[in-house]
Amino acid sequence: MTEPHVVIVGGGFAGLEAAKSFRGAAVQVTLVDKTNHHLFQPLLYQVATAALSPGEIARPIRSILRRHRNITVVLGEATRVDVETHSLVMSDDSTLSYDYLILAPGTRHSYFAHPEWEPLAPGLKTVEDALEVRRRILMGFERAEREPDPVERQRHLTFVVIGGGPTGVEVAGAIAEIKRFALARDFRRIDPRDATVVLLEGGKRLLPSYPGELSQKAKEKLRRLGVEVRTETMVTAVEPGAVIAGGWRIPTDTVVWAAGNLAHPLLQTLGVALDSVGRVVVEPDCSIPGHPEVFVLGDAAAYCHQEGTDLLPGVCQTAMQMGRHAAKSILADIAGRPRATFQYRDKGQLAVIGRGQAVADFGRFHLSGFFAWFTWIFIHIFYLIGFPNRVLVFIQWAWSYISFERGARLITRDWQPGSSPSDHS
Amino acid sequence: MTEPHVVIVGGGFAGLEAAKSFRGAAVQVTLVDKTNHHLFQPLLYQVATAALSPGEIARPIRSILRRHRNITVVLGEATRVDVETHSLVMSDDSTLSYDYLILAPGTRHSYFAHPEWEPLAPGLKTVEDALEVRRRILMGFERAEREPDPVERQRHLTFVVIGGGPTGVEVAGAIAEIKRFALARDFRRIDPRDATVVLLEGGKRLLPSYPGELSQKAKEKLRRLGVEVRTETMVTAVEPGAVIAGGWRIPTDTVVWAAGNLAHPLLQTLGVALDSVGRVVVEPDCSIPGHPEVFVLGDAAAYCHQEGTDLLPGVCQTAMQMGRHAAKSILADIAGRPRATFQYRDKGQLAVIGRGQAVADFGRFHLSGFFAWFTWIFIHIFYLIGFPNRVLVFIQWAWSYISFERGARLITRDWQPGSSPSDHS
Repeated sequence: MTEPHVVIVGGGFAGLEAAKSFRGAAVQVTLVDKTNHHLFQPLLYQVATAALSPGEIARPIRSILRRHRNITVVLGEATRVDVETHSLVMSDDSTLSYDYLILAPGTRHSYFAHPEWEPLAPGLKTVEDALEVRRRILMGFERAEREPDPVERQRHLTFVVIGGGPTGVEVAGAIAEIKRFALARDFRRIDPRDATVVLLEGGKRLLPSYPGELSQKAKEKLRRLGVEVRTETMVTAVEPGAVIAGGWRIPTDTVVWAAGNLAHPLLQTLGVALDSVGRVVVEPDCSIPGHPEVFVLGDAAAYCHQEGTDLLPGVCQTAMQMGRHAAKSILADIAGRPRATFQYRDKGQLAVIGRGQAVADFGRFHLSGFFAWFTWIFIHIFYLIGFPNRVLVFIQWAWSYISFERGARLITRDWQPGSSPSDHS
Repeated sequence: MTEPHVVIVGGGFAGLEAAKSFRGAAVQVTLVDKTNHHLFQPLLYQVATAALSPGEIARPIRSILRRHRNITVVLGEATRVDVETHSLVMSDDSTLSYDYLILAPGTRHSYFAHPEWEPLAPGLKTVEDALEVRRRILMGFERAEREPDPVERQRHLTFVVIGGGPTGVEVAGAIAEIKRFALARDFRRIDPRDATVVLLEGGKRLLPSYPGELSQKAKEKLRRLGVEVRTETMVTAVEPGAVIAGGWRIPTDTVVWAAGNLAHPLLQTLGVALDSVGRVVVEPDCSIPGHPEVFVLGDAAAYCHQEGTDLLPGVCQTAMQMGRHAAKSILADIAGRPRATFQYRDKGQLAVIGRGQAVADFGRFHLSGFFAWFTWIFIHIFYLIGFPNRVLVFIQWAWSYISFERGARLITRDWQPGSSPSDHS
């Protein structure tokens, strides 16, 4: 009898944890991802704001799984699942047959039926996204330095972040730090501290998944850093040179999208119920209805069976726990044991606001300020994959803290003076 | 009386050294560069071969010159010099008037009247170049892993480096290391050690600027690493999927160009004599004939007045020494003192071949092997600009040496399975 073949789509937190859990088991595993690297997404905003380099928060999937001899890594893009014939179709029309399928393809940005906003307001999902956002932020200051007209200059120096979740809060806080500290003395004609950072949130408060008290703390701390925080402000248009929101017209060339997610279109080919943002409504064991051999994990899954919550949050911990659970369920099937129900263990949530400032929600304990920030640093260093990355990131952070500098302030890609920002999409 | 205005074009080794030498002097300096960063070019091949990240070998020019209050940094591209009216014209048609002009714009690749080879065989001058070469090398292995046809597979695993100078030798040695160590255990279907690395040199020997004995050593060491070294082999064609050289047809998708340089076209607007590769034949003080207020430095200059050599080499040391000399000459003019003649002090040259292997030429002393490699490491760490970069690079190197790993193995940019390599140009 040949060993069962498990195909995993996605080398993020869920897919990678699932893959690792098959170590030494009598299964053949194929992990498919369209990039060659696992990305530590919680730190991606630090690449976008020039604090870290991409190489410091990403590691080749092959290298992570090198010692797992039963795993084959394939660089490629899955486009369709045929649940009847148990096969996964790739974008080059080749197919992979599976006995078990684990889908953890993640999400993309959703522009709420305004795809034309995307080139004007890039989001933060991939290394490329982060480098594009970094380029735009740094170019804003460079353009302003060359601009004689004061109105134009102020537009170059206005940065708008759309979405008040953890990513939006972290990006807005980091841009405010750049203008106040990292760039303050680097220009001759402009004062980078004159830059304006606006954070727009459609809902009532920032960080909606946190307790109200921490949302309030985050707002206050961001304002103290110099961020203009506007809640209950819906964006109605993003156009070249401006964002229109809540009746305001904010002239700007640099917009970062941190507002909406849409699950990967691959899920639409499963033929099962999806929620409003395209996630699969999964069974208590994370499999899909009618096909216990197919699992959907991470932020591609809408999990509604946990007591005390309507829906599990789409964060790393959920993804990692789901990954381990799916692997265990498959190994239970093979051993002829019953599957367990998935039980999510909430370990709390943390968001950084700025230098020495963060908010933390550990259920009963709510923290804010320096201690929350310190905790954030150590948890993130701990979960970063790979020894050299941990040391490098730690040194970058320590150096930034002492020197107020940012280590990765590179503008890459050709730049044509005088071209309009919309040319850079 | 207003202070004299010195305009510097280029933030490389020559331009930056010149700028720094004006510290505290009664001159106004404007430094123009088309990128925002100073790049430590001697380590660029390590970015191309996934050993270092771009952020580790580049630093914003603004940040380097922050404390030099008399220097303004302008991000922009100079296109023309009008020596009669003392003005520099930029690509957006704005102009800068100068009292003194220092041109250190560097070189571009020369494809010997075959511009159509450029997309097929990228060179190594900019961060973008290095990332493109890194992507191609890593993609070669990824494509091979997916390829069922053995002939196609071997083509994906063949890497051709054109040019046997220091860059070509370093790139070829580094690719040989990647295949032997870093990737050896990461793939399941292919054995990365089956990859072929070919180094092509048109001349009689590798490293033509080194003593013959070290050229021979370099060749032997490269061959021991598994590089196929072919000297006296002229490339006659680079076409999609193959390189034709010395009668050989080498099927390959990944070609790195390290063969020819051509000085920046800005120099053509000076109206003075250029040599065959577009460099300005400068006067003994590095100024141009007839215009003592205009200097041309670094590898944009052909300097033939040094005793014991026909032409100074286009390396960092030359550039840095010329930069300091030009600044001194300008300050002498202002003080009413006569200018000194430029005197180049040769501090030797070093090239790395691989792990623990290098060749060094310090005039009387010729070194090869481990000690030369160790010297190379310390000299390069010492000259890297910025404290955090020195520490980060040192840790990356120490970790690579212990673990045989490469820290920056990222393939960025979208990848379409099945697309031909020429689509990625």
